[in-house]
Amino acid sequence: MPINLMSPDPEQLLPVKGVALGTAEAGIKAPGRKDLLVMSLALGSTIAGVFTRNRFRAAPVLVSLEHLHAKPEVRALVVNTGNANAGTGNEGINRARQTCAALAKLLGCEAQAVLPFSTGVIMEPLPVERIVAGLPHCVAGLRENNWLDAAQAIMTTDTLPKARSRRVSINGAAVTITGIAKGAGMIRPDMATMLGFIASDARVSQPVLQTVVSDAARDSFNCCTVDGDTSTNDAFMLIASGQAQMQEITRIESGEATAYCDAVTEIAQWLAQAIVRDGEGATKFITISVEGGKHGEECSKVAYAIAHSPLVKTALFASDPNLGRILAAIGYAGIGDLDVSKISLYLDDVLVAEKGCRATRYNEADGQKVMRKQEIGIRVLLGRGSAKSRVWTCDLSPEYVKINSEYRT
Amino acid sequence: MPINLMSPDPEQLLPVKGVALGTAEAGIKAPGRKDLLVMSLALGSTIAGVFTRNRFRAAPVLVSLEHLHAKPEVRALVVNTGNANAGTGNEGINRARQTCAALAKLLGCEAQAVLPFSTGVIMEPLPVERIVAGLPHCVAGLRENNWLDAAQAIMTTDTLPKARSRRVSINGAAVTITGIAKGAGMIRPDMATMLGFIASDARVSQPVLQTVVSDAARDSFNCCTVDGDTSTNDAFMLIASGQAQMQEITRIESGEATAYCDAVTEIAQWLAQAIVRDGEGATKFITISVEGGKHGEECSKVAYAIAHSPLVKTALFASDPNLGRILAAIGYAGIGDLDVSKISLYLDDVLVAEKGCRATRYNEADGQKVMRKQEIGIRVLLGRGSAKSRVWTCDLSPEYVKINSEYRT
Repeated sequence: MPINLMSPDPEQLLPVKGVALGTAEAGIKAPGRKDLLVMSLALGSTIAGVFTRNRFRAAPVLVSLEHLHAKPEVRALVVNTGNANAGTGNEGINRARQTCAALAKLLGCEAQAVLPFSTGVIMEPLPVERIVAGLPHCVAGLRENNWLDAAQAIMTTDTLPKARSRRVSINGAAVTITGIAKGAGMIRPDMATMLGFIASDARVSQPVLQTVVSDAARDSFNCCTVDGDTSTNDAFMLIASGQAQMQEITRIESGEATAYCDAVTEIAQWLAQAIVRDGEGATKFITISVEGGKHGEECSKVAYAIAHSPLVKTALFASDPNLGRILAAIGYAGIGDLDVSKISLYLDDVLVAEKGCRATRYNEADGQKVMRKQEIGIRVLLGRGSAKSRVWTCDLSPEYVKINSEYRT
Repeated sequence: MPINLMSPDPEQLLPVKGVALGTAEAGIKAPGRKDLLVMSLALGSTIAGVFTRNRFRAAPVLVSLEHLHAKPEVRALVVNTGNANAGTGNEGINRARQTCAALAKLLGCEAQAVLPFSTGVIMEPLPVERIVAGLPHCVAGLRENNWLDAAQAIMTTDTLPKARSRRVSINGAAVTITGIAKGAGMIRPDMATMLGFIASDARVSQPVLQTVVSDAARDSFNCCTVDGDTSTNDAFMLIASGQAQMQEITRIESGEATAYCDAVTEIAQWLAQAIVRDGEGATKFITISVEGGKHGEECSKVAYAIAHSPLVKTALFASDPNLGRILAAIGYAGIGDLDVSKISLYLDDVLVAEKGCRATRYNEADGQKVMRKQEIGIRVLLGRGSAKSRVWTCDLSPEYVKINSEYRT
């Protein structure tokens, strides 16, 4: 059961001028499930992205990077679920290229103007014939008011589609931004999420767009973890179709760029949180804040140590304030000169530990009360400096094990 | 259900001259469960140990280190389960000292000659009155032929006691070595296990003993992980009571020291594997070997990334050869310049992946066959050098979540 997350209201999802979406049931996943998405971009669009840092980068990631480096005008994205096309070697790259070529032919553009994305099982051959056979249906159905359909087509173990829109005014011009993303396991993004796509009708130069997508990823998808497994296929793409009536944003230091980045980040944060809220088997949404570090990196280390500890995660699932497990995780996070006698720990507003041990005024009933909530804040003060970091995660339930034991069956 | 592990045969556990053991039900754990152990050492014994590297070191770890640094002749060890006395600040240290003082009084030695050890719940006050009240029963029951009782008294979520003996001939002298250990969660030892005690009647100088315990830990307890959580209380102690008829071993480079180290390491490896075989919720015992690295550290990184991946662990539980998850874990293990096209992956003798992708002659039926086994070898060849590393781990089952959700209830 996702935590405080509902299926998006189709009325709330705003079309982005210049960006059309079409889906198909290509038969990669079980019959009756959409598993293929095409996004076509108007001429004059710009695009930027960040990709997984897993050294086993999937074939579509390699081909997307190759196409982006060739600097064509990107005209379309194609996304399949059910198969990651990762660990598939040269044949995998050939099949990703075949997919691009087939779509390019249908759209009348060059193959390099198409970026491929895949998500699903690793190390199995991509069923490229089914994908190619499904593309005409996607292209025939291309329309701007199709975001919910698109969000559904990229789902794997997600229980709900994830999509969000907003309209912002940038220097007087109305700009529309809509984004979609999918989770829900193998989630510990490193410079990107599993798959996230945010489109806007803003006019933004490619270098500015690249900075915005990196900044937004850092403050959103890179703050969330379900199980600590960084995927081979992570990608987060930001599209600016240039259809809004506005001057092109060309300077990252401008007020327009800041306003645009803030709006994109807000959507990205919502989507990143939605991925955690719908994390495999999740029953609780946890925000871990680590403050008072010497630098952000050590704060992140502590936050991720807590977020990845199976013992902390199972205690959260059980609503058991067995909070010594959090201290243990802080202790093994890898800060060599950590002085534990300076550490405080809060559960929401409840002071649990101070000076490295159980706070004198802490009583377990207060901790228990917070642990029963569906949304819990864990706050650690390191007492070493002024840096901080924040991570969103979920608990570990028997359902997670069940989902991942039966993933392919 | 432990994997290929049985309760030790009391007949096979050999008494170690000079080392007597007594236990009690002190009421720290549920009624009817032994939870307190005293080991007394003959005059002239030497002792050495390695302790957790968790920065939150428990009070008994700090007090044991303090006593060892004071270099008294250690005359006794006292171990309680049910409470870790960790995250308990100065009061925790006072209570560990009170425990030592009470036992010292009973035995007629100084308090610094006693080393305290605790395991159990973190951040709760140590019930020192109950421990002190239980000590006379332990002391009254001290005898050399009491190892099974001792192994039972240090259990927490272990389902079986873990103990092992062997007799070796060192330069013509008969030496007896017996060890005990406990797991079974919060297991990712860093220079030590949860709690392991190995005693021998050998005559060994303290500096040699310290080297032997470090070397043995490196090749045994430090190679095992259940859930990646390094405990606050880990300790592995090696005792030489000096009662065997032999010359003292004083040089680490000698053949005698090597023979002694090999025998201790063999016991330590057996105990470390026993901890994993009885890991919380474990249904499979996995040996992960990573070879062909530039140095041991990077091999360990890869081995632990695989061992800690919830996705790999759940696939192992399900006997599902979803082996792309192993490639993904290798990819995010943190080797920045990893060339994935040089990687091979074996499941037992089955070649699963070569040159970074699915091996042409691999078929899933072969992988399935291995995955169904209770003991599985995962072997990764990195193709970068000649270093290697090995880690023992277990799978992740719904039972693990259940045990750790209900740990305190």
